[in-house]
Amino acid sequence: MAAQGVGNEDRAIARRGIMLVVSSPSGAGKTTLTRNLIETEEHITLSVSVTTRVRRPSEIDGVHYHFISKRQFEIMRSSDQLLEWAEVHGNCYGTPREPVERALAAGRDVLFDIDWQGALQLYERMRADVVSVFVLPPSAAELKARLERRAEDSEEIIASRLKNAAEEIAHWPEYDYVLVNRDLDKSFTRLRSILTTERLKRVNRADLEGFVGTLLDGLKAITV
Amino acid sequence: MAAQGVGNEDRAIARRGIMLVVSSPSGAGKTTLTRNLIETEEHITLSVSVTTRVRRPSEIDGVHYHFISKRQFEIMRSSDQLLEWAEVHGNCYGTPREPVERALAAGRDVLFDIDWQGALQLYERMRADVVSVFVLPPSAAELKARLERRAEDSEEIIASRLKNAAEEIAHWPEYDYVLVNRDLDKSFTRLRSILTTERLKRVNRADLEGFVGTLLDGLKAITV
Repeated sequence: MAAQGVGNEDRAIARRGIMLVVSSPSGAGKTTLTRNLIETEEHITLSVSVTTRVRRPSEIDGVHYHFISKRQFEIMRSSDQLLEWAEVHGNCYGTPREPVERALAAGRDVLFDIDWQGALQLYERMRADVVSVFVLPPSAAELKARLERRAEDSEEIIASRLKNAAEEIAHWPEYDYVLVNRDLDKSFTRLRSILTTERLKRVNRADLEGFVGTLLDGLKAITV
Repeated sequence: MAAQGVGNEDRAIARRGIMLVVSSPSGAGKTTLTRNLIETEEHITLSVSVTTRVRRPSEIDGVHYHFISKRQFEIMRSSDQLLEWAEVHGNCYGTPREPVERALAAGRDVLFDIDWQGALQLYERMRADVVSVFVLPPSAAELKARLERRAEDSEEIIASRLKNAAEEIAHWPEYDYVLVNRDLDKSFTRLRSILTTERLKRVNRADLEGFVGTLLDGLKAITV
């Protein structure tokens, strides 16, 4: 089964999937980077959170979020079905455990677009599976300019995003990798490289041992 | 100075260079992979060994080897100017220390095309700087076919290369990364990814701290 291998050509050598966590302040380019990664890379899927907040007209249930009731959320939380969760402005958000466990065991990677608090909770539960990347803007002025260029938010919201940015950025030392996103193409190449390289590390060494055993037997047979 | 940065766009954040060691049995594709890497990547140079053997007509002094006398070699070896050395069929080979130290300090990477014995000596002296990659052929039959396709060697030499291959391959567990070279393009992408990712790790955290400090000061100034 191709999904279990490092790639199509390494079918025989299984690996466990990676939990790739990407965090950044709003406007640093995280969403573009992660969307490009999902579109370009095979064997990686975006983790879809559950939320108790009301669905916006532009959102699709099961794609942007799984929209659930407060009661359903409480059941999931209390029965340890959430890998991480948070309450923001009275709404609850969380990452369901089961699809993540299933993907990792099948050698598929899971991408998490979450903040430092979510990352911390994933560390606490599954540190060995997590590879974390923090995306920094090149400068404060550039971050502000990007938020203004998006033309999505009012001046007030932009000011609050910039304040939140400082809080989020303070957590960069907790991440495995830091990308300074000056150039989107270069940052994307680096993000892909991290994924490719970490996949090589997660190759099952026992499987590789079997592979090399067969290789050495083969050499013995043809050099006798 | 661009050579000190992670790339042109990260000039402010210095890093120490990497010693990228690539080993494999003859015919596994190592030479093609390392040559492509030198041609494609900036800020990496191939380590040129010294040798006491006679220069072949096709070889250029200073490019393929530095050709030196036995006496010169002995002086280098005894005064600790060699990072690793070996004697093969009565000829001495070694890696001069000085150009490597100079490159690493300037943030340039150095590529080593050496066998497991050389890799082991580099580990002993500079483990923290070394990233090592072992390239495996996909099968014994394919290795033999590749050696025959090269049409460089007699049947006898091919047989001896295959015997040496088994000895070299037995050392794969000592390497940081293992590439099964089924497809040259894919293996090359992986080798580049290892270099890119390890470069991100070697970024000077103190420099990054300074960068984030400036970023946070900037945010403070525009959100007051």
